[in-house]
Amino acid sequence: MSSFDFEEQRIKQEITRSDAKRVLLQMPQGLKPQATRIAKIVEDYGAVPIISSDPCYGACDIAETDAASLGVDLIVHFGHARIIKEEKTPTLYVEAYANIQIETAVTQALPLLAAYRNIGLATSIQHLKTIDIAKQILTEAGKVVFIGNMGQMDYAGQVIGCNYSNATAINRQVDAFLFVGGGMFHAIGIALGTSKPTIVADPYDNRAYSITNEALRIIKQRYAGIQEAQNAKSVGILVGLKPGQKHFDQALKVKKLAEMTGRAAYLLAGREITPDALMEFPNIDAYVNTACPRISLDAPAKFQKPILTVNEFMVVCGEVSWLDMLKKGLFEN
Amino acid sequence: MSSFDFEEQRIKQEITRSDAKRVLLQMPQGLKPQATRIAKIVEDYGAVPIISSDPCYGACDIAETDAASLGVDLIVHFGHARIIKEEKTPTLYVEAYANIQIETAVTQALPLLAAYRNIGLATSIQHLKTIDIAKQILTEAGKVVFIGNMGQMDYAGQVIGCNYSNATAINRQVDAFLFVGGGMFHAIGIALGTSKPTIVADPYDNRAYSITNEALRIIKQRYAGIQEAQNAKSVGILVGLKPGQKHFDQALKVKKLAEMTGRAAYLLAGREITPDALMEFPNIDAYVNTACPRISLDAPAKFQKPILTVNEFMVVCGEVSWLDMLKKGLFEN
Repeated sequence: MSSFDFEEQRIKQEITRSDAKRVLLQMPQGLKPQATRIAKIVEDYGAVPIISSDPCYGACDIAETDAASLGVDLIVHFGHARIIKEEKTPTLYVEAYANIQIETAVTQALPLLAAYRNIGLATSIQHLKTIDIAKQILTEAGKVVFIGNMGQMDYAGQVIGCNYSNATAINRQVDAFLFVGGGMFHAIGIALGTSKPTIVADPYDNRAYSITNEALRIIKQRYAGIQEAQNAKSVGILVGLKPGQKHFDQALKVKKLAEMTGRAAYLLAGREITPDALMEFPNIDAYVNTACPRISLDAPAKFQKPILTVNEFMVVCGEVSWLDMLKKGLFEN
Repeated sequence: MSSFDFEEQRIKQEITRSDAKRVLLQMPQGLKPQATRIAKIVEDYGAVPIISSDPCYGACDIAETDAASLGVDLIVHFGHARIIKEEKTPTLYVEAYANIQIETAVTQALPLLAAYRNIGLATSIQHLKTIDIAKQILTEAGKVVFIGNMGQMDYAGQVIGCNYSNATAINRQVDAFLFVGGGMFHAIGIALGTSKPTIVADPYDNRAYSITNEALRIIKQRYAGIQEAQNAKSVGILVGLKPGQKHFDQALKVKKLAEMTGRAAYLLAGREITPDALMEFPNIDAYVNTACPRISLDAPAKFQKPILTVNEFMVVCGEVSWLDMLKKGLFEN
């Protein structure tokens, strides 16, 4: 059995309700091993299942052009809550809540939170149903718990790779953050967005740890990237082609700013922005990324040239100071 | 100066003629270093240039959905001749003929062709303008030269990664093939499609060599892949999402055949079919590829599971014998 809830009954109901004949299944990498099992369920219910094999990192990346091209009448998108306002193809979101206990990991986090009284609590969509359990453990340990809700996400306390508004919303009230979930990715986003001590309670490993040092390391890397980009004579402005990552007007503004500050500027549109893809442009000295802001943020060493967020490029152009940008956030609008 | 003709004048004329406001430039990897130079030319002519940064391997992969999404009114596609019958966005093909002498390489090929009298001549689009020079050198050396034209390509003697009909058309008349162009990719396609000795005259390295042994090595690998796939309990059928690589009806037929021979079968749709993307499906034992037939053919070791062409899967299912399939071709229809 999978440790995530694939909500097979809800999928069946939606196929029946919508009378879907062709269903596209789209999942992030961690869930894909279950794709064949879900495909069989869809098929048993009378629809033709097609599994999307391309990488998928978020609900910004609904495969709607692929669905249109394949004559699909229902997309089932797993692992992310909806962020696009209107999809071209009817889309069912299966958030894939984790069937996993968080108590041990959260309890392990308590010693790391000993110095702090007011705790901001945040989590990824997979663990939202257990956020009250985490809150209770913290409260019983004498903490005052804050769960932010800026209204940009579907759920209070929810964070996604590119949006930490539910953490920044409560930043002034809290001394530290606790993120409940697997891996460092989201917790780093909280630490970068809030500059507060941030602890991870990882229920998959049943352990807790601080990512504050990791966040500091990244901030140093970002500063070095900005310094390097100061000397860039030509700038590539990355335009995302995934439906929720396309900010063409912003890219045009960045291009204008680059040119006003004496740089040659080129628009580059791509679906997957990879080190290999960018290696093909030896004349470009630095990139500004208007697509997914997390690209290159966690692993800039994989890329040969600096890839800045739009906010970071404002520092390069002297529009804002490094410290003011840090306060605003490396990639928040 | 680049060693390829980017036909800047023709691009300018097309922008003026079509009054294009936004132009998408799409190039294969070898040409992309020139993209910024061409972008400047487009911009000087009053249109907004956007460079596609995604990989591009052929004219099967016209970026028409990207163009629509970006509001582009002209695609300039470099390095390949047209193969799609009707594009959704007006598309100018700049074949990128090579500005390079072929005489030395072709002369170097003569000793390797000493044992053969009737020579089939083939080349990639980049060198088509010099095919008469190659023919003359061969003729003066006492050879009888054949240049095939099955009418599937724009030009006689032209081959592309997935279509060697201009070689197979003359296969009965010739003792060996000479391919003029860089790299082994096209020449291997000729050798696999014709089973004739095949010599490369590479004008970039000014040298000639036989790829017959390489083709034999690949055929052995393909046979091993077919043997391994015989034991597959579940099969993934790859559906290409690039406009010229989508053969959904064929994929449905392959699925039916797989199921009739007792296998579980799953449709997987993807844009880029990579080892990483396919690693996500541990329950699938072998793949059948209805997208670009060259994927995995030259480097199967990069993939953990066999990826068969449709023709190879017919051997697995007992629909055709290995030898008859080899005669028909590993991937020709």
